[in-house]
Amino acid sequence: MNIFIIGLGLIGGSLAKSLRKSGFADEIIGFDKAAENLSYCLENKLIDSSSDILEGAKAADIIILATPVDGILELMPALLDQLDEQVVVDMGSTKKEIVELASKHPKGQNFVAAHPMAGIENSGPAASFEQLFTDKVAIICNPEKNARMPLNLVKLLFKALNMKLIYMDAEEHDKDLAYLSHLSHILSFSLALTAYNVEDKERNIYNLAGGGFASTVRLAGSSAAMWNPIFLQNKDNMLEALDLYISNLSLFKEHIQNEDKEGLNQLMEKSNTIYKIINQSL
Amino acid sequence: MNIFIIGLGLIGGSLAKSLRKSGFADEIIGFDKAAENLSYCLENKLIDSSSDILEGAKAADIIILATPVDGILELMPALLDQLDEQVVVDMGSTKKEIVELASKHPKGQNFVAAHPMAGIENSGPAASFEQLFTDKVAIICNPEKNARMPLNLVKLLFKALNMKLIYMDAEEHDKDLAYLSHLSHILSFSLALTAYNVEDKERNIYNLAGGGFASTVRLAGSSAAMWNPIFLQNKDNMLEALDLYISNLSLFKEHIQNEDKEGLNQLMEKSNTIYKIINQSL
Repeated sequence: MNIFIIGLGLIGGSLAKSLRKSGFADEIIGFDKAAENLSYCLENKLIDSSSDILEGAKAADIIILATPVDGILELMPALLDQLDEQVVVDMGSTKKEIVELASKHPKGQNFVAAHPMAGIENSGPAASFEQLFTDKVAIICNPEKNARMPLNLVKLLFKALNMKLIYMDAEEHDKDLAYLSHLSHILSFSLALTAYNVEDKERNIYNLAGGGFASTVRLAGSSAAMWNPIFLQNKDNMLEALDLYISNLSLFKEHIQNEDKEGLNQLMEKSNTIYKIINQSL
Repeated sequence: MNIFIIGLGLIGGSLAKSLRKSGFADEIIGFDKAAENLSYCLENKLIDSSSDILEGAKAADIIILATPVDGILELMPALLDQLDEQVVVDMGSTKKEIVELASKHPKGQNFVAAHPMAGIENSGPAASFEQLFTDKVAIICNPEKNARMPLNLVKLLFKALNMKLIYMDAEEHDKDLAYLSHLSHILSFSLALTAYNVEDKERNIYNLAGGGFASTVRLAGSSAAMWNPIFLQNKDNMLEALDLYISNLSLFKEHIQNEDKEGLNQLMEKSNTIYKIINQSL
């Protein structure tokens, strides 16, 4: 199978490594608008060759859009315009706008809207690794909009990545992911900004940071270019999730202000109970 | 050395295992007001015997207060009243009120205010393990208030636990820890409460939770009995940290609301820069 990967960051680079290793890809062509990503992938043989977008897409069997989600909206209609025999699949973390756009395209049934639930806080092809996707969940949204063959090709692609496939409606996806992924990133970004308040040039206070801080601040390393369009494409859900989150924080604040031990206990015990439910699935 | 551990939870249990293994403890006596913790520690030979508080303290060389921080304030003066030849050391996550209370006691120089920066989200002696403290930071607050011998005994105790010792002022400790530890716990508790909003009895949506959510929600499993008095003893710093944190979240919210891509980028890039500084210390 000839694979064309557009966007050679953490996801694109890891796809190249994993699809080559599994034997799913016979040849991998790559494109990235950042010259350093492209040359990294060529030098390290993550891809066999580079190409401009249209030529690469025409030479491939499967075109993977692994760019930030604003790039997906930009590239997908132009690709579908030019292609008849190929499947286009995206790897974006939002799905509603993307599925809506594909639905309007006459060849939209050849576009599969996917979201592999895999990522780390580091970005770029140098951070990529072959096992990134292994045993993780891949979501395909609204498969009923696809023709059978493009869908089957994408199913086999995720199988080659050793991912567990689930199917969802795009609108449901974006709402759930706002709470279960996107919000977490804003929490970490904001924690780094807040913790900087106690930074002290004289002493390295971050020595004091324990494992709890390390895990809650980790996502503050995430790529702005990737997350910016996710937050904007998922605007309504993000605003709802942020409002609810701020109201929960405000309850903690109010109970601390009032030294309301019982109120604090109730919040934490409810949270413990929810955590137990969550933790069974993690 | 005969050690009396008051409070046989995660910290007390791990101290027992580690101090025995290192050979620092010849005999370990334990007390916990929860009968199940006491019997767990006796049955699993974490402690050699149990005792009531006064008798156990008199039989020991070093008395370790490993209770929640409200228990430390309650027990420390009564212990100092009765003891002349022994050192009392606490393991609490707040230090200002504790150091102030000790300063007022005529035998306060025998009390060492300490905070081993080690913990996990699980609590109780069954979660304890010998390596909990290894290579972590232990803080001793206001050592200038101590007599030389109790201080030296506690230094050797932390050395036996393979911890890296640092010294701080209690007030500074509580402020820094509000930002670098205590706040993170409220963020996780609130995230669990917020994520529950999308819970759906029909589908297990937590299957969708990725590694990012897992790390930001992990501390929601933390013990309410431990954290309640920490938040209240560190009230002023917690309120300041929460206000600042909520104002950072509100900036994100405002930029999303206004679809202000540039504003979002600036916040995330600043956060990336801070994360790099933090990450060098983690």
